[in-house]
Amino acid sequence: MFPYDLSGKNKYYTLYGRLRGDVLCGRLKAGEKLPSKRSLAADLGVSVVTVQTAYDQLLAEGYIYSRPRSGYYVCAVDIQPAEVRHPVPPAEPAKPQYAADFVHGSAPAELFPFSSWAKLMRSVLSDCGEHLLERVPSEGDGELRSAVASYLYRARGISVDPCYIVIGAGAEQLYGTILQLVGRDKLYAVENPGYRRISETYALNGARCVPVPVTEGGMDVEDAIASGADVLHISPAHQFPTGAVMPASARVKLINYVRERGGYIVEDDYDSEFRLYGKPLQNMYALCPENVIYVNTFSKTLAASMRMGYMVLPPQLYRRYAELFGRTSSAVPLFEQKALARMIEGGGFERHINRLRNYYRGVRGALMAKLENYSVPHTVCDSGGGLHFTVRFPPAVSDECIKRRALAAGINVRCLSDYLLTPLKGYGGAAVVNYSGITLAAANALALPEIN
Amino acid sequence: MFPYDLSGKNKYYTLYGRLRGDVLCGRLKAGEKLPSKRSLAADLGVSVVTVQTAYDQLLAEGYIYSRPRSGYYVCAVDIQPAEVRHPVPPAEPAKPQYAADFVHGSAPAELFPFSSWAKLMRSVLSDCGEHLLERVPSEGDGELRSAVASYLYRARGISVDPCYIVIGAGAEQLYGTILQLVGRDKLYAVENPGYRRISETYALNGARCVPVPVTEGGMDVEDAIASGADVLHISPAHQFPTGAVMPASARVKLINYVRERGGYIVEDDYDSEFRLYGKPLQNMYALCPENVIYVNTFSKTLAASMRMGYMVLPPQLYRRYAELFGRTSSAVPLFEQKALARMIEGGGFERHINRLRNYYRGVRGALMAKLENYSVPHTVCDSGGGLHFTVRFPPAVSDECIKRRALAAGINVRCLSDYLLTPLKGYGGAAVVNYSGITLAAANALALPEIN
Repeated sequence: MFPYDLSGKNKYYTLYGRLRGDVLCGRLKAGEKLPSKRSLAADLGVSVVTVQTAYDQLLAEGYIYSRPRSGYYVCAVDIQPAEVRHPVPPAEPAKPQYAADFVHGSAPAELFPFSSWAKLMRSVLSDCGEHLLERVPSEGDGELRSAVASYLYRARGISVDPCYIVIGAGAEQLYGTILQLVGRDKLYAVENPGYRRISETYALNGARCVPVPVTEGGMDVEDAIASGADVLHISPAHQFPTGAVMPASARVKLINYVRERGGYIVEDDYDSEFRLYGKPLQNMYALCPENVIYVNTFSKTLAASMRMGYMVLPPQLYRRYAELFGRTSSAVPLFEQKALARMIEGGGFERHINRLRNYYRGVRGALMAKLENYSVPHTVCDSGGGLHFTVRFPPAVSDECIKRRALAAGINVRCLSDYLLTPLKGYGGAAVVNYSGITLAAANALALPEIN
Repeated sequence: MFPYDLSGKNKYYTLYGRLRGDVLCGRLKAGEKLPSKRSLAADLGVSVVTVQTAYDQLLAEGYIYSRPRSGYYVCAVDIQPAEVRHPVPPAEPAKPQYAADFVHGSAPAELFPFSSWAKLMRSVLSDCGEHLLERVPSEGDGELRSAVASYLYRARGISVDPCYIVIGAGAEQLYGTILQLVGRDKLYAVENPGYRRISETYALNGARCVPVPVTEGGMDVEDAIASGADVLHISPAHQFPTGAVMPASARVKLINYVRERGGYIVEDDYDSEFRLYGKPLQNMYALCPENVIYVNTFSKTLAASMRMGYMVLPPQLYRRYAELFGRTSSAVPLFEQKALARMIEGGGFERHINRLRNYYRGVRGALMAKLENYSVPHTVCDSGGGLHFTVRFPPAVSDECIKRRALAAGINVRCLSDYLLTPLKGYGGAAVVNYSGITLAAANALALPEIN
């Protein structure tokens, strides 16, 4: 009746598995009596303890039940048979190789001060020891929040109490948290053209988004106000992909708008550190700390893999944050938080940014030199901020042509129109040159494509 | 006209700040002409370059504009004056000290094999070097996913291709991702009583939740089906706080239910490693990998601060995951992922779990010994799984009385009814004894309270 082969190791588990399988497939029917432990043990040539252990496990899981002084019976466990298909996992597409990629890319890894970072990590490991295992409050480690506050003061002129700073696992997690704080019922305005990932993240989190056109001064003020949005997600210091810088008058109008309706501006300061000439621009948070949420990350300044970012919350949102998340833990390991805090406090972070800035100045200079001698008529639009600028071609040149000719020269590039969330006229003929992942050697070796 | 004191360092920045402040407060009016660089420099006793730099910054930020061959003029920047209040940050409430806390707590830190963990981290640091800076795919590091797959096979008998495993920054992040994968328009059933954090997380992410009563066999099957929920979030191995184990027949009925309507079961296996006697129970994922999402974390097994968890996705959800998140990065640093992968591969993780299990067996034994000699009439309900059980008192004893008397004896404890999401009858008079944070010494020293 039970022709099980229990010759291998772990006899009890094998027996349990076979019996369970027989119940699930219906070979053992509901209500059927199982043989006594003794007789099954004799049948199978195993000890009574083995059978007992298997029966116990089946009992615990509800495959069989026992009746006192009678024995073990099969429970009614009717699974509908279904073929379980484990399809072959999708193959990773091969990554194309370009002579220059102006679409993707982050700082060359060799610029990261890895040896001093490793040293910091080792010192955190030995200094903090088992404290690293303690629960980290959801808003982040106090030391890192203080370090960020003093960095913001030095680098951006923002004076903020560390208690309003929240550390998160990258920008997208922070956007999600903002949504939970401000409300999913609110309307969120995003820049068009813009980073698709921002509106996607809001949408994935269930918010309604409205794309608002970006003009030379950033998100268009009239359109933003007409949209009726409660929250404006903008990058006033250096918009991607247009490179627009929002003038003070527009900033103030948008602040007045959200202030009147009790809304918020999410000031996404994602690449303000890379204003290569002159001081970083004054941010909006300082103009109105009660209605601006300041967001920045370390993905551009340190490494894309460093999933850490922070936001500065207005006081009333901070109170709501404490209510909603006070009992949860930070998603960022304490280890990384402590190491980064020490890197900022010791000045290493700012030295690294300066090094990066110098490096990118060189890359930008090499690209500009190439463009100066470029035979194709064009205009370079560069506000001097961030790690991208645009190159505009005469109206007759189509976006398709720009990208095709570039690709033929080994150059991966996108056009402004590729970043449109909804179709808009007037964004044609402009290549977006994002040089964050371009090495100096690649910039010097660049051969610009013929476009006609 | 400009009585600025520029005697300090950084004259340009001071001048810029003063001028900006005067524009913002209206002392400098829109359209007003600024003095020429030369005359202002002479007035203030600074160099022309200093004034030029300040004017350039104000120009870049849009506070002033220039007219060729005429000079600099003030832009219209009208901010509505608002008092910015930075309220005093809320004080942290003092943490009460208990002789025994059966509400909060995780494994005593001294049980964590910190020195071997530190050794692993050091080895990852030197072996992986700058590779640690590479972008980690959103589903997690391949090595860790393979290690989890082989662990699941050894410890839980789950055979799964690593490609279906997604690493996340703790359980709550994973719940949020599940919601984005399955849909916010779906109805989510949660256990009542249960972990409040689960329904809170779903609600924060914008999902509709329906609490379903938990009976002796876990989430009530009839009620679950009657709820019309598309997704059932359950802990079949060991429900919190009731300690219920779901029998096979109920599991199969729920699987058949979600399979018919194209829904899912979220199998939250949060403490299955702590079945202190016998093998861990067979999980539901193995019964139906197409409609069960298996979720587990390392918070209970390693440390609460170790914000790492994982889920096993059904193939069709994995495809959707790749579509939605294929271009994003993992929220968990590569460093921790690599160290944990090595810990699992080297057997250290399972050795640690065994050590913890032995330890908790001792704690549980000490508590049981106390309860055996307890003068107050009671029944212990313990399925042998997980790190909590319940103690039920006669009907006359109120929950308030249990907690008050316990507190008087220095014991922090909650009752089943405290974990009800919506009021339900029949859950009174039961103390939930969560001993995950209780040391052996505290268990041995425990003086049970008089309750009458």
